[in-house]
Amino acid sequence: MSASRKSNDAAARPETAAGPSPAGRKRRLLSEAQEAEVREQREARTATRRATVPALEEILYEPLPVLDHGFIRVIDYMGDDAAIVQAARVSYGKGTKQARGDAGLIDYLLRHRHTTPFEMCEIKYHVKLPIFVARQWIRHRTANVNEYSARYSVLDKEFYIPAADHLAAQSQANRQGRGEMLEGAQAARVLDILRQDAALTYAHYEEMLNQREDGSVIDADRPGLARELARMNLPLNIYTQWYWKCDLHNLMHFLSLRADPHAQYEIRAYAEAMLETVKRWVPITYDAFARHVMGGMRLSGPALAIVRRLLAGETVSHAESGLSKREWSELMAALGREP
Amino acid sequence: MSASRKSNDAAARPETAAGPSPAGRKRRLLSEAQEAEVREQREARTATRRATVPALEEILYEPLPVLDHGFIRVIDYMGDDAAIVQAARVSYGKGTKQARGDAGLIDYLLRHRHTTPFEMCEIKYHVKLPIFVARQWIRHRTANVNEYSARYSVLDKEFYIPAADHLAAQSQANRQGRGEMLEGAQAARVLDILRQDAALTYAHYEEMLNQREDGSVIDADRPGLARELARMNLPLNIYTQWYWKCDLHNLMHFLSLRADPHAQYEIRAYAEAMLETVKRWVPITYDAFARHVMGGMRLSGPALAIVRRLLAGETVSHAESGLSKREWSELMAALGREP
Amino acid sequence: MSASRKSNDAAARPETAAGPSPAGRKRRLLSEAQEAEVREQREARTATRRATVPALEEILYEPLPVLDHGFIRVIDYMGDDAAIVQAARVSYGKGTKQARGDAGLIDYLLRHRHTTPFEMCEIKYHVKLPIFVARQWIRHRTANVNEYSARYSVLDKEFYIPAADHLAAQSQANRQGRGEMLEGAQAARVLDILRQDAALTYAHYEEMLNQREDGSVIDADRPGLARELARMNLPLNIYTQWYWKCDLHNLMHFLSLRADPHAQYEIRAYAEAMLETVKRWVPITYDAFARHVMGGMRLSGPALAIVRRLLAGETVSHAESGLSKREWSELMAALGREP
Amino acid sequence: MSASRKSNDAAARPETAAGPSPAGRKRRLLSEAQEAEVREQREARTATRRATVPALEEILYEPLPVLDHGFIRVIDYMGDDAAIVQAARVSYGKGTKQARGDAGLIDYLLRHRHTTPFEMCEIKYHVKLPIFVARQWIRHRTANVNEYSARYSVLDKEFYIPAADHLAAQSQANRQGRGEMLEGAQAARVLDILRQDAALTYAHYEEMLNQREDGSVIDADRPGLARELARMNLPLNIYTQWYWKCDLHNLMHFLSLRADPHAQYEIRAYAEAMLETVKRWVPITYDAFARHVMGGMRLSGPALAIVRRLLAGETVSHAESGLSKREWSELMAALGREP
Repeated sequence: MSASRKSNDAAARPETAAGPSPAGRKRRLLSEAQEAEVREQREARTATRRATVPALEEILYEPLPVLDHGFIRVIDYMGDDAAIVQAARVSYGKGTKQARGDAGLIDYLLRHRHTTPFEMCEIKYHVKLPIFVARQWIRHRTANVNEYSARYSVLDKEFYIPAADHLAAQSQANRQGRGEMLEGAQAARVLDILRQDAALTYAHYEEMLNQREDGSVIDADRPGLARELARMNLPLNIYTQWYWKCDLHNLMHFLSLRADPHAQYEIRAYAEAMLETVKRWVPITYDAFARHVMGGMRLSGPALAIVRRLLAGETVSHAESGLSKREWSELMAALGREP
Repeated sequence: MSASRKSNDAAARPETAAGPSPAGRKRRLLSEAQEAEVREQREARTATRRATVPALEEILYEPLPVLDHGFIRVIDYMGDDAAIVQAARVSYGKGTKQARGDAGLIDYLLRHRHTTPFEMCEIKYHVKLPIFVARQWIRHRTANVNEYSARYSVLDKEFYIPAADHLAAQSQANRQGRGEMLEGAQAARVLDILRQDAALTYAHYEEMLNQREDGSVIDADRPGLARELARMNLPLNIYTQWYWKCDLHNLMHFLSLRADPHAQYEIRAYAEAMLETVKRWVPITYDAFARHVMGGMRLSGPALAIVRRLLAGETVSHAESGLSKREWSELMAALGREP
Repeated sequence: MSASRKSNDAAARPETAAGPSPAGRKRRLLSEAQEAEVREQREARTATRRATVPALEEILYEPLPVLDHGFIRVIDYMGDDAAIVQAARVSYGKGTKQARGDAGLIDYLLRHRHTTPFEMCEIKYHVKLPIFVARQWIRHRTANVNEYSARYSVLDKEFYIPAADHLAAQSQANRQGRGEMLEGAQAARVLDILRQDAALTYAHYEEMLNQREDGSVIDADRPGLARELARMNLPLNIYTQWYWKCDLHNLMHFLSLRADPHAQYEIRAYAEAMLETVKRWVPITYDAFARHVMGGMRLSGPALAIVRRLLAGETVSHAESGLSKREWSELMAALGREP
Repeated sequence: MSASRKSNDAAARPETAAGPSPAGRKRRLLSEAQEAEVREQREARTATRRATVPALEEILYEPLPVLDHGFIRVIDYMGDDAAIVQAARVSYGKGTKQARGDAGLIDYLLRHRHTTPFEMCEIKYHVKLPIFVARQWIRHRTANVNEYSARYSVLDKEFYIPAADHLAAQSQANRQGRGEMLEGAQAARVLDILRQDAALTYAHYEEMLNQREDGSVIDADRPGLARELARMNLPLNIYTQWYWKCDLHNLMHFLSLRADPHAQYEIRAYAEAMLETVKRWVPITYDAFARHVMGGMRLSGPALAIVRRLLAGETVSHAESGLSKREWSELMAALGREP
C-alpha cells in the first residue's frame, strides 16, 4: 500500500552518495510530509485507563536511526512490568504490590522459563530495513508483519551501503562470519560496485516501470511493466519497510539470537536499537533478561563436570574433556582461562 | 499464583445454592476486595499518545457476566480501526484519511483474506469459566494464556450449574448437539446430581488438602495432600480463570467458530459477550465481520452450480445435486427454499 | 468420534478396583478388539523410499504403559538423524556422509540454537492420559492435537488413582511442589475418597446420560441428558485420549520442561516414556539433547562471575553474591558445594 | 550449508543465456552429481509399518520443474487419507472402514472447518525458487523452513527471466495485478535489462567474493569480501532453495491463497505443481478441497439476500444492492449473469 514519499533531492540526502554522514543521528530520516505526520501523532494526547509507560511514550512514533537509511519506530505497546506480574497472578487489580516483590517474581519467572506471563505484553514497531536483513528477520514466525508491497507501490531509491569500517573480509575460521577489514583500493572498489549497481538497477527499474521514483510517467505513449515483475531487478540491499508486532517473550527470544555476537552486524544493529526500547518499556524485565540471557551462558553436562573438577583443583585438558574444540574454547573463555 | 479470594458467605452469593438468580446481571461477581481493586484501576487515568478507543475504555476492567459465575473483563487493548488501515498502508501517520475510505478498505481486506492488518490489533481479557469450557477454548493455539494454577493455589468453590432452560436432551439427529429440553422430575434430578456432587467433591478436596476454601487449616496435626494431587477429584464444571490475549484476526476466527450455532451453548455465551466488546473496540471491522463471516456462507462449486441452474429456471432435486444430505438442506435453508 | 470400546468386566481389569497391579507392565491396556486392530497394523508391511528407522518401527503402534491406565503409542514418524543434516545442508541426497560428521553437526546445531533443522522431523503419538495431565500438556501450542470428543462419545470408566508411594503431602518449601509421603490411615483415606468419588460421579454420569458405559440404554422411556452436558460432572482424573503430533524441535522443548524434576510427577511419567521413543528414533540427536539440555544448566552473568572468583581461589558467600537464595542454592548444588 | 554444485558450462544449460528452452520439461534441472544422489535415494527401498502412498512414492525425490530454473521435490510425507479419519476418530487401528465412509467424513470435516484431523498429515518439499517468490511464500508462518544460506555458501548463477508471454504491463484496473502483454521492442528491452543486470551483478558478486561460481579463487593475493555482505548486490530474481515442511491443513490454506487467480503468476506456478502432489498423496481430501475451497465461494449476508431476491423473480441492481462494485461484479460472475 502507498506510503507518502520522502523528498529525494540531493541536498536533502547527501549521504546517499557519500555513505552515512559522520553525525548519523542528524541525517534526514523522513520527508517533510512524513515528519509532519509523525509530529501530529506525537502531539495528540488522550486519557486512558490502560497501563502507560512514560519513558516509552517519550519516544513513541519517533524514528530511531539504524544503518544508513533505516530506522525503528515504536508505534504502540500493551502492558508494562506490572502487567507481567498481574498475569502471573491472574489478579483482579494491578499486578504490583511493591517494586521489590515484582522484581523478584520477574527474575524467578524468567529464570525458570515461565514464559507465558511475558507474552502478555506486546509491542509494535515500524521498521525500515534492507531486504537481506528483512529475510533474516522474517524467519522468526511468532510475530505479526505487514510489509510495504512492491506489487502495489514503487520502492524508494534507498540502498544500504556499508560504512567503510564494516567492509569485512570472509572469516577463514568461521564459514558464516567476518574476518579482517578490507582496506584501501579494495574497499573502495566494493563501495563503487555497490553504489553503481544500485544506481544502475534502480534506473532500469524506473525504465521498465516507465515511471520515476517521484511517480511521474517517463513516456506517456507506452505502458510500463507490472510492478510485481519490475521489482525483481532490484538488489537485496534496497530498503523495504514493515510494521512488526511481537509479544515480549518472543521479542526477547528474537533479541537473544539477533543481538548475539554471532548474528550478522546489520541485523544486530536493529536488535541493539530495539534493546533500548525494551529498557524503556519494561526496565525490570530488561534487567532480568540482561542478567540471565544476554549475560548468561548454557553449560552442558560435561562442561559442568569440568568446572567441578577444576574447582576441586584438578587439571583438565581439552583432550580428555570430551568437549568439541569450539565448546572447549568457549568454556575456557567464559571461565577466564587460557584455552 | 494467588488471587485474592472473594467472600463466600451465603448472604453474598445466594445463587450458589439456588442456581443463578433471576436477575443475573445483578448477581455478585466479585468479592468486596476485588471490586475495590477494579474500582481503583478504573479510576486511574493517564495521558497517552497511543490510539485510544473511548467506547472500550468505558467498560475497561469491568466484569461482564457470563453463565452463573463466569465473566469476561477487557484488561487491555492495542490499536483501533485506524491502526488496521495504518498497517495495511505501512504509513507514517494515522491510518485514517476519512472514515468512508477506511470502511471500504477494511471491507476489502476482510473479504479478500488480507488478514495480516487485523493482526496489528490486540486485546487482553480476564475470563472466569468452567473447566470444560476452558478445554474447548484452549484448542485455539494462536493466543497467549495464563491460567490460575491449582498446583499453586486453592480453587474457589464455584461450579457451573445450568439454568433449567438449558438442560437439553441428547440430540438424536446430531451426535454432538442438543435436542429437546428435559422437564420436571428429570431436570430436577440432573440439577440435584450436579449440585450434590459439586458439594461432595469440594468437601473432599478440602479434606484432602486439610484446608478450607477460606485458607484456614482443618487439623493442625496432619499434613495436607499436595494441591497438585487433590485437585484431581474436582469435576469439570468447577470454575477456573485466565488471562487470555489474542490479535483481532485470530479473535475473529475464534468467534466465527465459537459464536456459531453449532458451538456448545456454554462457550457460545462467552463468544457472544466478546462480540459486544469487539463492536465497541473496532466498530468498522465488526460490521465487515458481521457481514462477510457471521452472516455469510461458503458455497461449494456444486452448490454454486445449483444456484445458477435455479436462477435459470430449472428444477433441481437433491437426488441429482451431488450434494450430501446435510449440505443440501443447509443450502436450501440459506436460499429460503423447502428442502 | 467413536473409539471402539474395551471390555470392562472386572476379570479383565482387576486393577480398576484395586489400584495399579504390582506388575504394572502386565496389566491389560487395550480391549481384545483394540489389540486385534493394533496387531493388524503391526503385521502389515509396505515398501517405501522414505527414511526409515528400524528401532522405532519395532515398537510402532504398541502401547507403552504410563500411570495406571494410560499409555503412549507411536503412530507415525517422519525423518531420522540424517534428515536433520540433510535439511541443514539443503542437500539433494541423503544428509549423511559419515556418522561422525553428522554427530558433530547435530551437536553444533543444538548447542547454537539452530533449531530449524530439527523441525524437519515429525512424530505422531496416540496418548491416553488423565484430564488434569492433558490440561498441562495442551499448554504447548506448537503441536497438532485431536482429542477424543466427550460431546460425541461416552468416556471410558477409567480414573487415575495414584500409587501409594505417590501420595505426597504439600511441600512447605515450594508452593507448587510435593513434600513427604502421606502414610497409613491418611493415605488410605485419600485413596478411598478418590475411588468412591470416581465411582459415584461416573454412576451419575451414566444415570444422566441414561446410558451405560457399554452403550446400553438404562430406561428406554426417557431421554438422556446431552453428552456435552453430562460430562461436566466427571472429575479431572478421568482418562481422555488424543492424537498428538509434534516436530522434533518442539518435542525437545516440551520434554525439557516436562521431564524436568520441577514438573508434576504425572506428566513427567509421560515425558519419560516419550524420551525412550526419541532415543530409538534419533539416537544422535538424543545424545546431544541429553548432553546440552537435560544434563546442562544455564548460568546467569553473576553466577558465571562467581564461578570465576571461586576458580581464582576466592571465597564467595551468598550474602555478597547478588543471587537470589534459590539461584544460589541451585548453583552450589551444580558445583557440588555446600550451600 | 553447502549443496553440491551443478555444472554450469554453457552446453549443459543453454537456456541460461537464451531464456527457458521451448521444451521446458526437458531442460536440465540438476547437475550430474545431484542426479546421481537423487537416483540413489529413489532406488533404495525399505520395509515400513507406516501408512504408505504408492502414487506419491512414484515421484518421491524427483524434481518437478517450475519456471525456468526452479523445481519442487517431495522429500518425505506422513499419513494419508485414512490417517485423517483415524485421527478424527482417535482410533486404535486404521482409520478406514470403507472408502465411501471415509470420503463422506472427510468432506464433512472440511466443510465444517474441523481442521485438526488434516493437521495429522505432513509433507516436506525441497524447493528451488526466485527470492522475490520466496519472500511472498515465507509470509506463511505455519510451516518449517531451512533455507540455503548465502552467509555460508555461494549462490548459484541462476536467475528467473520471465518467458515472453508473461511480460505483462501494469494493470490499470488493479493496483497489484497485470494487464496486457508487452510486445516487440519493449518486451525485448525488458528481457535485455534483466539478463544484463543479472550477469553484471553476478560478475560483481564473484569479484567481491574473489571467488568464481565454481569455487575457484580469482586472485590468491587478496581476501574476498564476506559472503554475508557480497550477496547484497544480487537481484531479487536470483534463485534460492529451501526445505519446506507443512501439515496438510496449513498446506491447503497456503494453496487456496497462492493457487488463486489473484496470486502473482510466479508463485501460482509453484502452487499448481504442489496441487498435483496433493492429488497423488491424499486424493479424497484433494477432491473435497477442490469442491469446497478452490471451486467454491464465500457469499456475504447481503449477497445471499440478493440471491434469494433473484430466485424470487425480483430484479436487483447494483445501486440498491449495498455491495461494493467489486463484490457485486464477482457475485454476478459467479451467478453467470451480466454485471
